Amino acid sequence: MTIFYTPDIEGEKYILSAEESRHAVQVLRLCAGDRVQLIDGRGSLYEAIVEEPSQRGCVVRVVSVEREYGKRLGYLHIAIAPTKNIDRFEWFLEKATEIGIERITPLLTDHSERKIIKDDRCEKVILAAAKQSLKAYLPDCDSLEKFDDFIKRDFGGAHRYIAHCNNDFPRREFKDCDRRECIVMIGAEGDFSPKEIDRAYQAGFTGISLGTARLRTETAGVVAAVVAGV
Amino acid sequence: MTIFYTPDIEGEKYILSAEESRHAVQVLRLCAGDRVQLIDGRGSLYEAIVEEPSQRGCVVRVVSVEREYGKRLGYLHIAIAPTKNIDRFEWFLEKATEIGIERITPLLTDHSERKIIKDDRCEKVILAAAKQSLKAYLPDCDSLEKFDDFIKRDFGGAHRYIAHCNNDFPRREFKDCDRRECIVMIGAEGDFSPKEIDRAYQAGFTGISLGTARLRTETAGVVAAVVAGV
Repeated sequence: MTIFYTPDIEGEKYILSAEESRHAVQVLRLCAGDRVQLIDGRGSLYEAIVEEPSQRGCVVRVVSVEREYGKRLGYLHIAIAPTKNIDRFEWFLEKATEIGIERITPLLTDHSERKIIKDDRCEKVILAAAKQSLKAYLPDCDSLEKFDDFIKRDFGGAHRYIAHCNNDFPRREFKDCDRRECIVMIGAEGDFSPKEIDRAYQAGFTGISLGTARLRTETAGVVAAVVAGV
Repeated sequence: MTIFYTPDIEGEKYILSAEESRHAVQVLRLCAGDRVQLIDGRGSLYEAIVEEPSQRGCVVRVVSVEREYGKRLGYLHIAIAPTKNIDRFEWFLEKATEIGIERITPLLTDHSERKIIKDDRCEKVILAAAKQSLKAYLPDCDSLEKFDDFIKRDFGGAHRYIAHCNNDFPRREFKDCDRRECIVMIGAEGDFSPKEIDRAYQAGFTGISLGTARLRTETAGVVAAVVAGV
């Protein structure tokens, strides 16, 4: 069934955004009475019916609602250096959303080749993935943040990990760590610099390994998302 | 460092294939004395030196060899229905190779939209991924096989699993199953048909779940590869 994003939904009726209205009426040719699904990105999944199939503002009426739909037990926040090839980073955004994640922070590191990223584009990719995999919760996506600013953040009681491949620093296997509520930093191709790893450890991050395989940045991100949920 | 594929390497010297010779000399402009790495796909990683940088047949001389490089403890064989969008399937081939897998069988199922697949293209994608992630072992990739033929295969002592989303059949969480040596079947979008699931169970396959998230075929394949290694 078709899924629409209704972030600020309240009450029984909702007018879809101009973009989604066009999609609903022009592309999907939805008619009055057709059933659709709505997600608000905050955990609610709605069953609804098209009431006025207008291209300017398609009106839908809520029939039923399911709260905390697909609520996850843990909390995963991945901070990752966007790849030079943006497709690979967007692929990470899509797959992490599909597998399950609460927050993503694009990270600017010493070895980052990509130093700019379009926030709206990231949100588009995440929303499309959330619709496709029927996620009522949308992961938050921050703007690009400097490594040193990120490690200084207050993450409350969450466990903080930095995934790297530098054997000069002690590491634990991520699968053996407490992963219920955690932050995981993933570096660019070329890994984090020794100075970054050192500063992260000093800031209270624990070094982790994601296994013996040599992984690309975006693959490491997806592997971390899967292992966090195991 | 540049990596070349030398499947039938024996002894100290090797002449690269026409394609790799062109790549080495024309594209990479390698000269006599340049260091390269060689993988034979059967577990050996070689350090070598370019001796004759010929475009027709670039001669390299082995300096040292490491046997059973990156040998995995377990054995994973995934049989998966190729996706309608071939990019998504090739993405699975790339990521599964990167993460680690021994064998892949493209599966023809009741709900398969794609009924043809190019073997040589699959091998190309796997080889590229193996080079990129420095894998001395190349996963085997079979030709497209019918579901009913596959479940009748003799898999020796390996555990056999079928991942599906049909709540009418009992399932176990894959992460709680014995995954040291296993076969995992992944269906097409639209899942395996109830008849297929029934026949697989009768053939001795155990139904598994890859978690609560609704996953695309290629994502399910990658998740299975990660969980198998955890």
